[in-house]
Amino acid sequence: MESENNIVDISKRDIAKLISNVENNKFDCLQDIRRQYFKKGHAFIIGITGPPGVGKSTLINRLITEFRRENLRVALLAVDPSSNITGGAILGDRLRMTRHILDEDVFTRSVATRGHLGGLSKIVPEAIQILDVGGYDIILVETIGVGQDEIEVSNFVHTVVLVLVPGMGDEIQAVKSGIMEIANILVFNKADRFEIGKHNDEFTVMGISNYSDAPKQKYKKLFKTSAKDGTGVKELVEEILNHRALFVDTGEFKRKKNDQLRVFFDSILKEAVTKKIMGLIIKDASYSEVLAEILQGKLDTYSAAEKLIKEHLFFEL
Amino acid sequence: MESENNIVDISKRDIAKLISNVENNKFDCLQDIRRQYFKKGHAFIIGITGPPGVGKSTLINRLITEFRRENLRVALLAVDPSSNITGGAILGDRLRMTRHILDEDVFTRSVATRGHLGGLSKIVPEAIQILDVGGYDIILVETIGVGQDEIEVSNFVHTVVLVLVPGMGDEIQAVKSGIMEIANILVFNKADRFEIGKHNDEFTVMGISNYSDAPKQKYKKLFKTSAKDGTGVKELVEEILNHRALFVDTGEFKRKKNDQLRVFFDSILKEAVTKKIMGLIIKDASYSEVLAEILQGKLDTYSAAEKLIKEHLFFEL
Repeated sequence: MESENNIVDISKRDIAKLISNVENNKFDCLQDIRRQYFKKGHAFIIGITGPPGVGKSTLINRLITEFRRENLRVALLAVDPSSNITGGAILGDRLRMTRHILDEDVFTRSVATRGHLGGLSKIVPEAIQILDVGGYDIILVETIGVGQDEIEVSNFVHTVVLVLVPGMGDEIQAVKSGIMEIANILVFNKADRFEIGKHNDEFTVMGISNYSDAPKQKYKKLFKTSAKDGTGVKELVEEILNHRALFVDTGEFKRKKNDQLRVFFDSILKEAVTKKIMGLIIKDASYSEVLAEILQGKLDTYSAAEKLIKEHLFFEL
Repeated sequence: MESENNIVDISKRDIAKLISNVENNKFDCLQDIRRQYFKKGHAFIIGITGPPGVGKSTLINRLITEFRRENLRVALLAVDPSSNITGGAILGDRLRMTRHILDEDVFTRSVATRGHLGGLSKIVPEAIQILDVGGYDIILVETIGVGQDEIEVSNFVHTVVLVLVPGMGDEIQAVKSGIMEIANILVFNKADRFEIGKHNDEFTVMGISNYSDAPKQKYKKLFKTSAKDGTGVKELVEEILNHRALFVDTGEFKRKKNDQLRVFFDSILKEAVTKKIMGLIIKDASYSEVLAEILQGKLDTYSAAEKLIKEHLFFEL
């Protein structure tokens, strides 16, 4: 499959700068991106999740190599829940060490989501939008764990790949956290380490198979890979690309993009309206008067807001 | 010092329920709390932070015992950055095991902040407000780490106690993350484990002493405690209560409360206004028309918002 966005008018450097702005809650610079996104927006977005230690990084490197063989441009967005102060750079450093660093058609980046206004659900979709407009065909969104972040990310991606290692008890953790239910493709990595019939492998696979019958699952496949020697990676990529084709054919791709456009539209409106109206309210004398009453202990905050809104904005709280 | 709020009209159970509501983004139930807070609001709020493994829990148990000896009612709010799905209950379980479980005048609770709209900065001040109205004289806000959460919490508390263990390299981590600068009281716990003059102790204390000269520091004291045998805990509590007296005397307490009242007032206004105006916009035919143009690929989200606002709300984006 050929790349659909051969013309790229945004440099890697500009993309990195735009994502940094988003991390810092600066959205004004996104005007051009928003103008282009509604026309473009071709990328297939893949969430990759799983507990630490299952070999996600190695697997992701292998996946990128496979996607590049298909002449697809790939972006990797690593969601970093650590703070921007203490740990934000660690994951970034790791990313920069990938073997694809010199490939012009591969972009890797970590985004710090903790301590930011709106957190993950505000930053990740904007970053995806930027990468999409940047002409990447495949966007991998990596999260490290099986928790709330993973559930949130699943709202913004087209398919979720859950990576586990058999016999490590990961499955139980994943089942408990609800990740199993949002996963579309299950990968058992480090397949070289275990043999069929041993190490509870059959039991594990059976356990998983039961999950594929769950009513919430529209689409679920099970893969065994060895990121170390590359076993199963080609088949996994074929499956992902099949999933993409199915997504486009069924109109699911378009539906998901429309949902996202509406979320973006509402959020721009909301921010503009709130900023404008709050600016007007705070400048008005009545605001200072009511605030003074609060600080003098005459009015509580709720009654004060009630009063201000009723008398000056003519609606009821 | 005697408890200032002997009359308590909210049960522990009601407080727990109100905090749960806040965790679930339900703020309507806070009307009564807001009405009472501006009159009450007497609690002294102490942030307690430090890396895992420094013995914070044991120290907090000791602190609670000491505060109770002074006849002060104590609430412990543990900020839990783990998801509400995977780990929220773990910290909660630990809390419930404290020796103060049967004391009617001690309230302990963990709040899950991750994955919530607005996160920590929305939930923690509201929870503090509830506990304050609930009649607790001392509110301990525990965070587990030296990162962004700790910096955020420092905005809502009166004093920050940073707990470290000498020779563990914690200080360097704390310095790097900026926690040292926001700490008002430094505690070296596990003092029983080291002797003066050994284990780089003098060096460590010197390093810390230098920090107390930093211009940002208005108030900084250094304590050595042993949570295990109780050494130094009484002195630490005396210092905290001195800090409280100073805070009230200098008017800093009142100033901080006023700041918080304004934040609450603005946030009630903002929420009400946004809800109202967005409700009106979305119901209007022009919203659907412009949204349709986006979905048909005629308009991008930014231009669409610009158009809607200019034509219907008569201001410029």
